[in-house]
Amino acid sequence: MTVRHEQITVASTKREETIEITPRVKAAVTRAKVRDGVVAVSVAHTTAAVFVNENADPDVQRDLLTTLARLVPDAGDYRHAEGNGPAHIKSVLVGGDITVAIRDGGLALGRWQGVYFAEFDGPRTRSATVTIIGERAG
Amino acid sequence: MTVRHEQITVASTKREETIEITPRVKAAVTRAKVRDGVVAVSVAHTTAAVFVNENADPDVQRDLLTTLARLVPDAGDYRHAEGNGPAHIKSVLVGGDITVAIRDGGLALGRWQGVYFAEFDGPRTRSATVTIIGERAG
Amino acid sequence: MTVRHEQITVASTKREETIEITPRVKAAVTRAKVRDGVVAVSVAHTTAAVFVNENADPDVQRDLLTTLARLVPDAGDYRHAEGNGPAHIKSVLVGGDITVAIRDGGLALGRWQGVYFAEFDGPRTRSATVTIIGERAG
Repeated sequence: MTVRHEQITVASTKREETIEITPRVKAAVTRAKVRDGVVAVSVAHTTAAVFVNENADPDVQRDLLTTLARLVPDAGDYRHAEGNGPAHIKSVLVGGDITVAIRDGGLALGRWQGVYFAEFDGPRTRSATVTIIGERAG
Repeated sequence: MTVRHEQITVASTKREETIEITPRVKAAVTRAKVRDGVVAVSVAHTTAAVFVNENADPDVQRDLLTTLARLVPDAGDYRHAEGNGPAHIKSVLVGGDITVAIRDGGLALGRWQGVYFAEFDGPRTRSATVTIIGERAG
Repeated sequence: MTVRHEQITVASTKREETIEITPRVKAAVTRAKVRDGVVAVSVAHTTAAVFVNENADPDVQRDLLTTLARLVPDAGDYRHAEGNGPAHIKSVLVGGDITVAIRDGGLALGRWQGVYFAEFDGPRTRSATVTIIGERAG
């Protein structure tokens, strides 16, 4: 069994956007030389999130951000003084970490699944920790 | 330390429903012969989810689906062409993976907790990966 | 590689509140003597949750509870007989487990991040399992 961490840096260019990081998570898994285990991705921020969803039609990502903005609108009953109260709440609703199985050295993602970093208070330079735990190839 | 994966197949019969998979997760843990560790369950789909909640009163599951349908209604500002935009968003809100501790060979669930697969765009045949990592009994 | 569990008890004093448990998670990691790995925290209840978010301004926590109460109001179309239907739904939306990386013996949290237990149906005495998996210092 082995443990390996990698830090990923994500540069967002808008106030809100989702950025696919699947290739970077895959590359970290390959570098770890782990054949079977899990990979956890966790964001180091309180106005960002990470999730797995469709990476074929970009409209899915657009619909997600639009719906979150409707559920947690910019204007509302927020006391947090920095003005990014809604971003904190979206971060909690979407969640700050994911876990994906590693099988035969690859990510056990479905055909349409990609790993996404969600920016809710950009543009900023962000970071996430990718941790791989598992058994190395024999 | 050992790693073991199992693939679970879930056949949904409605467009939206929750299906308890606790016995199947428990059986996978038993087969892995792991005494202490964690089990991660992750869905391989972008319009489904997995979560832990009450398995005593079925109305809890009904209330969850009804509330999600109110928050993310079928008709709305969605651009995703396939017509299942809301299902993708519900999938992100509920989440695609869970992690539960394994203690003394069993799932460390509370008295009322069950593991549920959530179908948001069925009926379909779905799959999830159950990954067990931990120490085998001595 | 080693696995260690600790049970955390959280006593809530209100019907709804968030309680920071970062110091207790850190202490469990220190006691496990794990240098690199992950820690998973999972709640044993169906009307509570765990999440990571800002621990500097208490208004962030207030805004979260207020927004959840707006999205899932006390009065609504709930059939669950115990009257705590909304608490179950909030539990699913926020989620019942988190995973954080352990690097160099510490939690890989960002500067403003804290680990929170969320009570949605208190006051009660609650418990959560903290599971540490990783490599001990050499």
